[in-house]
Amino acid sequence: MAVMKLYGSPLSSAVWRVLASLYEKGLDFEFIPPFGQVPAFVDGDLKLFESRAITQYISHEYADKGTPLVVPGKQMAIVSVWMEVEAHQYDPLAGKLAWELGYKPHFGMQPDNAVVEENEGKLGKVLDVYEARLSQSKYIGGDTFTLADLHHLPTLSFLMDTPAKKLIESRPKVSAWVADITSRPAWCKVVEFRKQH
Amino acid sequence: MAVMKLYGSPLSSAVWRVLASLYEKGLDFEFIPPFGQVPAFVDGDLKLFESRAITQYISHEYADKGTPLVVPGKQMAIVSVWMEVEAHQYDPLAGKLAWELGYKPHFGMQPDNAVVEENEGKLGKVLDVYEARLSQSKYIGGDTFTLADLHHLPTLSFLMDTPAKKLIESRPKVSAWVADITSRPAWCKVVEFRKQH
Repeated sequence: MAVMKLYGSPLSSAVWRVLASLYEKGLDFEFIPPFGQVPAFVDGDLKLFESRAITQYISHEYADKGTPLVVPGKQMAIVSVWMEVEAHQYDPLAGKLAWELGYKPHFGMQPDNAVVEENEGKLGKVLDVYEARLSQSKYIGGDTFTLADLHHLPTLSFLMDTPAKKLIESRPKVSAWVADITSRPAWCKVVEFRKQH
Repeated sequence: MAVMKLYGSPLSSAVWRVLASLYEKGLDFEFIPPFGQVPAFVDGDLKLFESRAITQYISHEYADKGTPLVVPGKQMAIVSVWMEVEAHQYDPLAGKLAWELGYKPHFGMQPDNAVVEENEGKLGKVLDVYEARLSQSKYIGGDTFTLADLHHLPTLSFLMDTPAKKLIESRPKVSAWVADITSRPAWCKVVEFRKQH
């Protein structure tokens, strides 16, 4: 019996974020699909919500399993900076574009072109910063793959299925980074999971 | 000479967040007021940005000084959940209200009543969750004051100077919590700092 349980909608990008960390760690878990937006995670007595809090818990609590997703000492401060950039600079824009260009057409609605244009412009500027960062280090938080990269996966993967992929493809370092992290075996398992649910 | 340097606008709530953590830790630092929105923090060779990444660095790197702002082991997972709630559920709404009810009138502009009403409604629902949480534990992340509380201080303190304070005053547990954390000596130093800059 799996000790860990993940509750959430299989359509939720926050659920995919948690799944990516579970697969990177090679941990056993049970997925329980409920309605509602918020993933919840149970490990023994501990109940957690908020996808990025769950991935941090998994990374620290199971530090010795699978991929090290956090790094020691001062290096972690730099990883934390880029985790904050993902959450506050990248994700709100990527999320709006995913809604307009992904979900809306999927449900037969028209994207709002003004909203798309505004958010593409803003996300382009954020990705210019990423392009410069990725010219200095292989991954966004440093030389190794960490939570700072992993947290981007659901929305990056989503955007690559929309016309907004041009924002990624026009930036060589960003483009190589996206190709690298979306081809990780753990992320391929998340993609497989999405197909099966 | 102070080793640590904090760069930012003295009007920025993100700067106040970092200041609160520096004062809680009783650390020596130099404040360098530049224009621009983003606080930056330098400690020796390390350069950081994003206020919540800076407070986390300060809390971990100077764990043995001043107030312990992080907690050990699994308890930290719960603190992290509420740090995520602050950043993703509370702050976007509180920030919009601070803009409409604080900055706009300050600069002679009219608040947009529809935006105020919508965000007050949404923030009320978030604070209902806080009211329930604070019936179970003294602080938002657990029994002691942590970063999960501290991160709320700039916007809570700001909202208390606007008509949106009714959202806080109408909830007894939230109200007592706000009174408690805004009267901490370290936060009083931040308020003093704001008066002097």
